[in-house]
Amino acid sequence: MVQQTMSGSTRASATNQEALQFLETIFSTPDLGVLALESKCRRFCEHYKSLPSGDKIPFLTTLSKQYGVNQDTVIQVARNVVNAQEKGEALLLMTEERLRHALIPQYQQLFSKIGRIEGGVKFLVDMRADILTNLPGVQSDDYKAHMRILQQTIRDLLALWFSVGFLHLQRITWQSPCDMVQKISDYEAVHPIRDVSDLKRRVGSYRRCFVFTHGSMPGEPVVVLHTALTSSISSSIHSILKTPTFSGSNPTATPDSTTDGDVDEKEDLARISAAIFYSITSTQKGLQGVDLGNYLIKTVVKELQNEFSGITQFSSLSPIPGFKVWLVTELNRIINLKDIGEDNDELLLSSEIETMRNALSIPDHSVLKTFKDLIQTHGWLQNEHICEVMKKPLMRLCARYLYIEKRRGFALNPVANFHLGNGAVLWRLNWKADMSMRGINQSCGMMVNYRYYLQNTEENSQKYLEDQVIPTTPDFRSLLEHTG
Amino acid sequence: MVQQTMSGSTRASATNQEALQFLETIFSTPDLGVLALESKCRRFCEHYKSLPSGDKIPFLTTLSKQYGVNQDTVIQVARNVVNAQEKGEALLLMTEERLRHALIPQYQQLFSKIGRIEGGVKFLVDMRADILTNLPGVQSDDYKAHMRILQQTIRDLLALWFSVGFLHLQRITWQSPCDMVQKISDYEAVHPIRDVSDLKRRVGSYRRCFVFTHGSMPGEPVVVLHTALTSSISSSIHSILKTPTFSGSNPTATPDSTTDGDVDEKEDLARISAAIFYSITSTQKGLQGVDLGNYLIKTVVKELQNEFSGITQFSSLSPIPGFKVWLVTELNRIINLKDIGEDNDELLLSSEIETMRNALSIPDHSVLKTFKDLIQTHGWLQNEHICEVMKKPLMRLCARYLYIEKRRGFALNPVANFHLGNGAVLWRLNWKADMSMRGINQSCGMMVNYRYYLQNTEENSQKYLEDQVIPTTPDFRSLLEHTG
Amino acid sequence: MVQQTMSGSTRASATNQEALQFLETIFSTPDLGVLALESKCRRFCEHYKSLPSGDKIPFLTTLSKQYGVNQDTVIQVARNVVNAQEKGEALLLMTEERLRHALIPQYQQLFSKIGRIEGGVKFLVDMRADILTNLPGVQSDDYKAHMRILQQTIRDLLALWFSVGFLHLQRITWQSPCDMVQKISDYEAVHPIRDVSDLKRRVGSYRRCFVFTHGSMPGEPVVVLHTALTSSISSSIHSILKTPTFSGSNPTATPDSTTDGDVDEKEDLARISAAIFYSITSTQKGLQGVDLGNYLIKTVVKELQNEFSGITQFSSLSPIPGFKVWLVTELNRIINLKDIGEDNDELLLSSEIETMRNALSIPDHSVLKTFKDLIQTHGWLQNEHICEVMKKPLMRLCARYLYIEKRRGFALNPVANFHLGNGAVLWRLNWKADMSMRGINQSCGMMVNYRYYLQNTEENSQKYLEDQVIPTTPDFRSLLEHTG
Amino acid sequence: MVQQTMSGSTRASATNQEALQFLETIFSTPDLGVLALESKCRRFCEHYKSLPSGDKIPFLTTLSKQYGVNQDTVIQVARNVVNAQEKGEALLLMTEERLRHALIPQYQQLFSKIGRIEGGVKFLVDMRADILTNLPGVQSDDYKAHMRILQQTIRDLLALWFSVGFLHLQRITWQSPCDMVQKISDYEAVHPIRDVSDLKRRVGSYRRCFVFTHGSMPGEPVVVLHTALTSSISSSIHSILKTPTFSGSNPTATPDSTTDGDVDEKEDLARISAAIFYSITSTQKGLQGVDLGNYLIKTVVKELQNEFSGITQFSSLSPIPGFKVWLVTELNRIINLKDIGEDNDELLLSSEIETMRNALSIPDHSVLKTFKDLIQTHGWLQNEHICEVMKKPLMRLCARYLYIEKRRGFALNPVANFHLGNGAVLWRLNWKADMSMRGINQSCGMMVNYRYYLQNTEENSQKYLEDQVIPTTPDFRSLLEHTG
Repeated sequence: MVQQTMSGSTRASATNQEALQFLETIFSTPDLGVLALESKCRRFCEHYKSLPSGDKIPFLTTLSKQYGVNQDTVIQVARNVVNAQEKGEALLLMTEERLRHALIPQYQQLFSKIGRIEGGVKFLVDMRADILTNLPGVQSDDYKAHMRILQQTIRDLLALWFSVGFLHLQRITWQSPCDMVQKISDYEAVHPIRDVSDLKRRVGSYRRCFVFTHGSMPGEPVVVLHTALTSSISSSIHSILKTPTFSGSNPTATPDSTTDGDVDEKEDLARISAAIFYSITSTQKGLQGVDLGNYLIKTVVKELQNEFSGITQFSSLSPIPGFKVWLVTELNRIINLKDIGEDNDELLLSSEIETMRNALSIPDHSVLKTFKDLIQTHGWLQNEHICEVMKKPLMRLCARYLYIEKRRGFALNPVANFHLGNGAVLWRLNWKADMSMRGINQSCGMMVNYRYYLQNTEENSQKYLEDQVIPTTPDFRSLLEHTG
Repeated sequence: MVQQTMSGSTRASATNQEALQFLETIFSTPDLGVLALESKCRRFCEHYKSLPSGDKIPFLTTLSKQYGVNQDTVIQVARNVVNAQEKGEALLLMTEERLRHALIPQYQQLFSKIGRIEGGVKFLVDMRADILTNLPGVQSDDYKAHMRILQQTIRDLLALWFSVGFLHLQRITWQSPCDMVQKISDYEAVHPIRDVSDLKRRVGSYRRCFVFTHGSMPGEPVVVLHTALTSSISSSIHSILKTPTFSGSNPTATPDSTTDGDVDEKEDLARISAAIFYSITSTQKGLQGVDLGNYLIKTVVKELQNEFSGITQFSSLSPIPGFKVWLVTELNRIINLKDIGEDNDELLLSSEIETMRNALSIPDHSVLKTFKDLIQTHGWLQNEHICEVMKKPLMRLCARYLYIEKRRGFALNPVANFHLGNGAVLWRLNWKADMSMRGINQSCGMMVNYRYYLQNTEENSQKYLEDQVIPTTPDFRSLLEHTG
Repeated sequence: MVQQTMSGSTRASATNQEALQFLETIFSTPDLGVLALESKCRRFCEHYKSLPSGDKIPFLTTLSKQYGVNQDTVIQVARNVVNAQEKGEALLLMTEERLRHALIPQYQQLFSKIGRIEGGVKFLVDMRADILTNLPGVQSDDYKAHMRILQQTIRDLLALWFSVGFLHLQRITWQSPCDMVQKISDYEAVHPIRDVSDLKRRVGSYRRCFVFTHGSMPGEPVVVLHTALTSSISSSIHSILKTPTFSGSNPTATPDSTTDGDVDEKEDLARISAAIFYSITSTQKGLQGVDLGNYLIKTVVKELQNEFSGITQFSSLSPIPGFKVWLVTELNRIINLKDIGEDNDELLLSSEIETMRNALSIPDHSVLKTFKDLIQTHGWLQNEHICEVMKKPLMRLCARYLYIEKRRGFALNPVANFHLGNGAVLWRLNWKADMSMRGINQSCGMMVNYRYYLQNTEENSQKYLEDQVIPTTPDFRSLLEHTG
Repeated sequence: MVQQTMSGSTRASATNQEALQFLETIFSTPDLGVLALESKCRRFCEHYKSLPSGDKIPFLTTLSKQYGVNQDTVIQVARNVVNAQEKGEALLLMTEERLRHALIPQYQQLFSKIGRIEGGVKFLVDMRADILTNLPGVQSDDYKAHMRILQQTIRDLLALWFSVGFLHLQRITWQSPCDMVQKISDYEAVHPIRDVSDLKRRVGSYRRCFVFTHGSMPGEPVVVLHTALTSSISSSIHSILKTPTFSGSNPTATPDSTTDGDVDEKEDLARISAAIFYSITSTQKGLQGVDLGNYLIKTVVKELQNEFSGITQFSSLSPIPGFKVWLVTELNRIINLKDIGEDNDELLLSSEIETMRNALSIPDHSVLKTFKDLIQTHGWLQNEHICEVMKKPLMRLCARYLYIEKRRGFALNPVANFHLGNGAVLWRLNWKADMSMRGINQSCGMMVNYRYYLQNTEENSQKYLEDQVIPTTPDFRSLLEHTG
């Protein structure tokens, strides 16, 4: 699209031209009084919203390029700063101040004023979502660079506006506005809601569904956190959600781990000693990179401690999105390497290979491939015997995926990275924890608990963020051992 | 104080040293996780609040100097930017981005995080108030420069946080929380509140008292606007406040201009056609320079238009602080010039001098001095006859003060500057409009109406802010005419 | 059940005995302090609720008989009153006062105290519902008489407690608590709600759904009134509810009568000039005979007048339950009379008979029977031609049913009686107004508008209640004319 | 006034005549529809409120006499009841039902409808207050009898409407509406509020001020209860209110009994173990005889138990109004008896007389008179020595006043009667507990604690109300002992 603009396609040029003309009217007299500026803000928002979706990115590209910083000025003032260093601190500081101003994109002032008008913050959130969605498609490096600055400028504003002091914690129950409850239902991405009675349960007894809302986006839940109140740390989502499992086999729930019962049932405080965060959803793509989920968990923990003095355990019960994809990719890679005779990396231990060969009555060399096929076709679920044989290697490999695999030093799995960054401990891997089609497809039915030990979260967070240390338990670590 | 620090006084050095040590613990590991940073924020706030008041400015000076920008880095990156200009736009933009970051003072990140903790925004508002109060006393130019940047950094954050979307409009009535009503009473600076029944009237019938509150400073009115609902534009504060006058003479109220009556009286819509803003107060010194009053007026205008379709006139009834001081200063200057034989500037017209000479039976040459004395001693109020004689020159000079006298091109009088910047018209000067001791001392009892013509405010505001054009009325302009 | 008790069945006797014993503990010391009485109230409620449903009526019968008035006392005091008439007014009044007290059933005091405990009012409402449901089945006349007094005693208390001052008007929207919205859906009896989007529409734009709630039954809508905001008085429920019709034929909606559109659509005030009450539901059987619906309509009218100055027409669009049943019964009666040669009453006019005979090519004598069959089998809907032929007689007979047919002087149809008692006018009969299966079964698809002319409702109400005068329109009356 | 009416004074006759004419228009058509009746209710209320205060009682007298019960009908139906007794139960019940209706005053229906209109309940409360105030002045016995029935009829309605379920508990703090806080201040009758800071303290930390409001009288506190939260049961009002004492002597407060401190101080839960009810006020004379204070205390106890698990002691600190008046009356009586030689009753013990004689150096025979004079002139406060001598007899006599003196079997002192009826224990008499002028005048500075032992209140209440048993403590009883 942008390339078209560059290459001179008539439509794109026209678009570009129109954008330039419109922006000229907005930025013509920069030193406006407040009222004048406000009407410009409104015109800008309306204009952008009225653009056909294909014209939005070209418009923003033009904006980012034409109304960013004046580079001649920047270079001139940068030169002054370099020269000012010997003329005393006061002068240097003053010149730096001018440089700071020179580096503020023109559109930043516009955006900060847009935040002041009704619906303005939501407008910026949505516009940034457009940018994040389309940025990868922008093909000119220059344009990409301009757009990145545009995007970061908005993010910095949003980060200041979505500070905790401006967020309102709200518990959602069956007494909450229908509108809000419906949004909770629509936004739920981790464990989709099946029907009204499922929905009622998620906001009912032994559950706490909390959201953050924001003054400038009324009625919109910005982050949603679902918590189950249980007697011990849940090892299966089925005990929380009463979901049917895909296979016939019974999910292996920790006995008595979940307080069952009617939606309106009076909660028995004596049975509540654990809070399980089983779903957390950020609803606004445009707020990506603005820390909200972490704050919600922290705020909810405080809220629950106030309400229940008996809760001593806080833990997530988290999905492991990406495990199956990663595993199949790795298996393919190894199989290919083996095919060309290079197999110095072993995914499966020899003891595991032996067990599998015996169990399935197949030759050694086809174990890897059979293993992969069983995973891809869900064949491992077809009988209890194969399932048992697969359990050990799958759990070991999943533990490895969570604990060993990295991206820029941090946990490869995004959910793991989120909770570890918050200071949680990689606590327990649970077999047959989510036997829905979705759970099997994502992570061969496994889920993981990230546990929050309140007195250590700060220290854990710091160690993880600074030194990439992942805190875990002996039990979890034993899954990784190569003995068998 | 700061000078002492520089000159090496033991106590100041110790303070400085302690500040350095403390700040070291705060800034030691800058790339903290969220939780760690939050506890640092809390420690910083507690530390600052616990400092003896004499140690606060040295502490902030140390902070501003030691944890501002790293100037070596800035100069190095500035040099890179200068050199990058020929290496393509993408690289230039990237280098600029680094420069932008280099120019962010270290403390800015700390402050933006402080805004997230409970009470953090209020803390920054109060800390900035400390700076604004004490900055003039800082004697080292270098320190002053650092402190100015510190102060501006906070102001920029506050300007983003005190955007309109985050401000809540609230009408204050006798049904509002006592706590809030008491604050309204305590903060009233323009026309002090005398007793409970006065207070009750200001939030009662035919009055609208509106405030902005802010989510992060609950229960605290940030700006307060008092409005009276009348049948025509009020020419006297006494008809609004029922205040006693200082002199025995009756205040000259426009007949029927103000709807009188009981505090709880049901409002008669038919009698309401004007809204008079008669007091506006910003309560937080730390929010100086953050535009709030303007927004409050605009929001209240909308609110009133919704409530009363019959209101067609919006106007202030404003004090003229500084007029008497300015006038006496001018008179002294002219008298001194005359004494040395230079009197090319005339404050009084010859016709006025003649009238006064006749009326007071004094020689020509002592008219100016007598005029000054009458003003300084309030002698002009002692009888109705002198008062009448003084009326014309005083109104003319006050009109001149408001319309002609400037500071950097803008109206010298700050209240005028505020309303003109909002797009109001300098509409009418009112004689004997505030005959309280306070009103006589400030402006010889005169008050002025700045009128808001809604369809023109935007244009007026723009013209005033860009070209310093003050819109006024023929009647007002006729006061300035030099004919007798 | 009660008969069994009388006849001495073992179980019933046992029940009776238990009831007596329990009630003895409740009424043993009648002059109790407040606290003691309260615990008795609680015990009484719990006891009653714990009774098997078959034991409830025997229990209440025992209560009504044993703890009503002491008849010996009543007769004695009644005698005293008769004798007191000549001994002066003061003495007579005092004796009357004693008689008044003697006539208060013992259980009345208990009930009035039950109303004070939490959940007590709801308990009495439910207990009265039990009585009303089961009273017809009580076979002993004595018992029936006692039970009737019991029931009236509760009704009198409830009538005082459900006064308008204690009822809270609440508008239900999609922003209301889910719990409340779900109840609105569950309780809707007139036009059942099909799905979530139907529900959303009924509380959405161009609709006003109001309820009364009561302080002692929180979260429970006591009466529900659905109103549609339209441009003219609706002649068909389909234009309001977008319901599918049973037959293929298009419902004949007054053109443009209903403001259509999206649930969240902003309402266009210019298009709203009529308010149509299209469903009113009392949710508590135990409140039968306590006037609530009338008050709700009146309160909603005021509310709508405040919100919309443009609404000038208020009307119901009401079902006509019972019309088809009544018509078929009448037809059967006439047919039977004819069979034995007595046919002095004619349901169909001769002109109608002729038209039908021609249209259907049937002999005269079978017209009545065919007419009846077509109605019972819905045959008249099978083709447009027959339908047209049936229209005139059906509308005429329905108008007769509504206007002429009476029960104790008042309109036989209960919905008509309700609206006429409120002071409405029998305004227009609408053909093909509710072509749902339900509408066809109840009233051959017809509905009726009862219109509220606000300035006349009081007078109309009085005339109807006192003199049984039904106000109607010339158009409606013309339906009744016996000319062909 | 009424007598005048009877005796034929012109004005009174006219009034009577006007009342009759007006009432005729109200009651002319008794079987009205709801709407018609409502407008009659409104007319009735307006008429009554517009009457000059001197015409109100004649108007009500006319109403009570003319629109009470029809005595001919009553007598006729009473006769029927007497005759019905042998004609079977069903018939008897039906006749009784007719009698019950005949005994309902005509105005009762009007009043019950007035309760339905806006402001109607408050109207009846105020009208009943008028009756209660003026009833003693009505001189005709007949009229008095009619008015008493009128008054009781209203009371019975109000008792049903002011049931607990309809009352809303509200805590009043400095955050409550000014309007409400001002009313709390205005209504405080037990310990008048001195100034704003006193008021702020009474709704501040370590205090709980609760009110009941009623849906039909919004913004009006119906009963007010002030509670102090302390570490032990307070023995002096000064430690709660920080009031100055009348005499110079220090009040003897139980050490550490009251949590002192700032109005906004954070409460230290560890220091709170007692709740002291130190003022309870019913604000509506028209609700006399309707039990509200008792329910408020009970509700507040529950509320406090929920908020503070550490509160184990609940007690009043109550004034003893009437003690000094009673004592002086008794002393006068005895002195008079002695004067005529009859002195079989002794108020003072011989040991007390002896002590006093010695202490004051006066002859035996003048002790009683001196004792009386010291009390009447407050002379006993003039020096510490006399004060000490007076302490024992005064405390003994006050204990006697509270425990022994009765009116119709119940405690003579109304405050005692109230708390004992609630089930409290007469717990401790406190010397120098209220040394304000008011306290000295009422009860020689003494106050008393009525303690609520929650597990026994019900039993205590029952014993007191049925058998007039006053529960007390050994310590209290020892004050009564005649040893010396």
